[in-house]
Amino acid sequence: MSRKILMLPGDGIGPEIVAEAEKVLNKVNDQFSLGLSFETALVGGAAIEEDDTPLPESTLEKAKEADAILLGAVGGPQWDSLPMAKRPEKGLLGLRSNLQLFANLRPAILYPQLASASSLKPEVVSGLDIMIVRELTGGIYFGQPRGVRELESGERQGYNTYAYTESEIRRIGRVAFEAAQQRGKKLCSVDKANVLEVTVMWREIMEDLKREYPDVELSHMYVDNAAMQLVRAPKQFDVIVTGNMFGDILSDEAAMLTGSIGMLPSASLNAQKQGMYEPCHGSAPDIAGKGIANPLATILSAAMVLRYSLGEEKAAEAIEAAVSKVLDQGLRTADIMSEGAEKVSTRAMGEAVLAAL
Amino acid sequence: MSRKILMLPGDGIGPEIVAEAEKVLNKVNDQFSLGLSFETALVGGAAIEEDDTPLPESTLEKAKEADAILLGAVGGPQWDSLPMAKRPEKGLLGLRSNLQLFANLRPAILYPQLASASSLKPEVVSGLDIMIVRELTGGIYFGQPRGVRELESGERQGYNTYAYTESEIRRIGRVAFEAAQQRGKKLCSVDKANVLEVTVMWREIMEDLKREYPDVELSHMYVDNAAMQLVRAPKQFDVIVTGNMFGDILSDEAAMLTGSIGMLPSASLNAQKQGMYEPCHGSAPDIAGKGIANPLATILSAAMVLRYSLGEEKAAEAIEAAVSKVLDQGLRTADIMSEGAEKVSTRAMGEAVLAAL
Ligand SMILES: CC(C)[C@H](C(=O)O)[C@@H](O)C(=O)O
Ligand SMILES: CC(C)[C@H](C(=O)O)[C@@H](O)C(=O)O
Repeated sequence: MSRKILMLPGDGIGPEIVAEAEKVLNKVNDQFSLGLSFETALVGGAAIEEDDTPLPESTLEKAKEADAILLGAVGGPQWDSLPMAKRPEKGLLGLRSNLQLFANLRPAILYPQLASASSLKPEVVSGLDIMIVRELTGGIYFGQPRGVRELESGERQGYNTYAYTESEIRRIGRVAFEAAQQRGKKLCSVDKANVLEVTVMWREIMEDLKREYPDVELSHMYVDNAAMQLVRAPKQFDVIVTGNMFGDILSDEAAMLTGSIGMLPSASLNAQKQGMYEPCHGSAPDIAGKGIANPLATILSAAMVLRYSLGEEKAAEAIEAAVSKVLDQGLRTADIMSEGAEKVSTRAMGEAVLAAL
Repeated sequence: MSRKILMLPGDGIGPEIVAEAEKVLNKVNDQFSLGLSFETALVGGAAIEEDDTPLPESTLEKAKEADAILLGAVGGPQWDSLPMAKRPEKGLLGLRSNLQLFANLRPAILYPQLASASSLKPEVVSGLDIMIVRELTGGIYFGQPRGVRELESGERQGYNTYAYTESEIRRIGRVAFEAAQQRGKKLCSVDKANVLEVTVMWREIMEDLKREYPDVELSHMYVDNAAMQLVRAPKQFDVIVTGNMFGDILSDEAAMLTGSIGMLPSASLNAQKQGMYEPCHGSAPDIAGKGIANPLATILSAAMVLRYSLGEEKAAEAIEAAVSKVLDQGLRTADIMSEGAEKVSTRAMGEAVLAAL
């Protein structure tokens, strides 16, 4: 049996951090006899340069055949002025949508070793462990119609459509309720049901699903209040479920509460548990090629590959334990550096994780 | 000459806090011979109970004739199950839209006396002073079409429309550039131009306006990054300009950085500088009628009435100085209480401001 992992390094620091994660996957592959095989393909700006498209057909084919995908990051200033359809981000959005990776799991966890990196007071964030479940293939990201039109008055109007069907809401709701069952049994659904009709339906369906998960306590919160509560008292949350756009905003806000976004992995899954895994941070073009990026979020994303798409819990835990160990050893890349710690390069951090495995 | 102020107490703690602000306005009216006259009307849940509509015709008429409106807050759980069109929030949205109050100014200021109330570390927020300029009469809040429809498949789809015309963007852009000129000369425009067409046009128009304000430094930020940066390093911002929905989320997040949302006023202005003024916080139904709500955000909103709609800068400053003085005296309502301070009621806080005037 061979299980295929597709590596998509992408842009900016992507290639550097994915290289370290690949070494780690190779090592656990041997240690746990996982039978993994690896392929690599282009996506985003890297694909634009080579093939004039952010998502080449060949990449999409390989992605469909893979059991899991490990992505670095996409995007960079050199492609910012391209028309929307040709931008690096379309590679990412195209993969999400073509593979129907509707369930985006974004943990926001504060590593005790890095508690001081947070801009929040220690008592507000110590022990923080939230899971944000974001719908990823619907909502305003993909809604039609969209574009820019000329009005009768002669002026232009830009427009997008925020839409969800009942079944789209129901399937992400189930993922969230199940995640809550595995965790603290509290689910907070975030919407703007006092203004947006689409989220009135969202709220109704979450209420409806509640009856199937009697052990989970469901609450609802408006998105503006959720943005406040995450700052005020983030530990009140266990699992948060929300749509694509609100999830984009709130998951980044929640990640930053930890002060160490360079540590946070994410998983995007479809109904068959095929998944794309990527760090929560971006392509960081300003530090690309310097060998100083933090590879740990990508390495932890590799652990999520093993847990969620391959069911290899032991191997996943081994990686997570190794990461915890290098933090205990006081090794830090520049982004999480603090006084008294030892500053290391991307590669040295990867090597340290390998050694700790 | 008589200048009309319409008081709209609204729901929850609204009547209690507006009563204190009215006393304060009465006093400066005498002290500075402002020639103010006051009227009161119903809006929100209070209007639903009386007139079966959140925005009675008579209230709208009075609002149109007023030079400025001072609003408490609207909404409460007893009206949450009403259909969208009948909810208290529609009273607020109807006023904004009928009076074309397109420019919402939301300062997020950390009062040095209350620095410890913030959940962020003191060095991250001390001296914080951001102004968020939110577009308030367009975007997804008012976009058509909207609703719930049945698809051919038989399932329901909820949908809303996020739309902006060039002129809507241009007029809010000008307000923001002018605010930046009066302040630190830095403007950050927040959008999601890597995904949403409507915000690609938003960004273009902000770039275009830049040429008219060469003394202002314009930057652009994606909304997810802005939500992060507000947590990481909020002092990097001077003025932020954004659309209605992103502004709703980011202004609440920014307000909560101070830890004392009970202190923050807001102004919503139209092209004639007619305005509606209200505290940033909500109707707080859980503490309504208990006499413990913080009236200072409403009192500071009254100061904004004088500054922005009536051009009475001196009277505005007198109110602000009085508020600062009561904080110096160590008086605190429950929401901003800290060790060693003196806990006071809504009314006692109002009286203290009067005495300090
Ligand atoms: C790059 C961008 C299109 C993407 C998104 O908005 O979904 C990113 O911010 C993310 O959250 O993965
Ligand atoms: C009450 C609600 C409709 C309103 C809004 O979303 O605009 C409120 O949150 C605000 O920010 O003033």
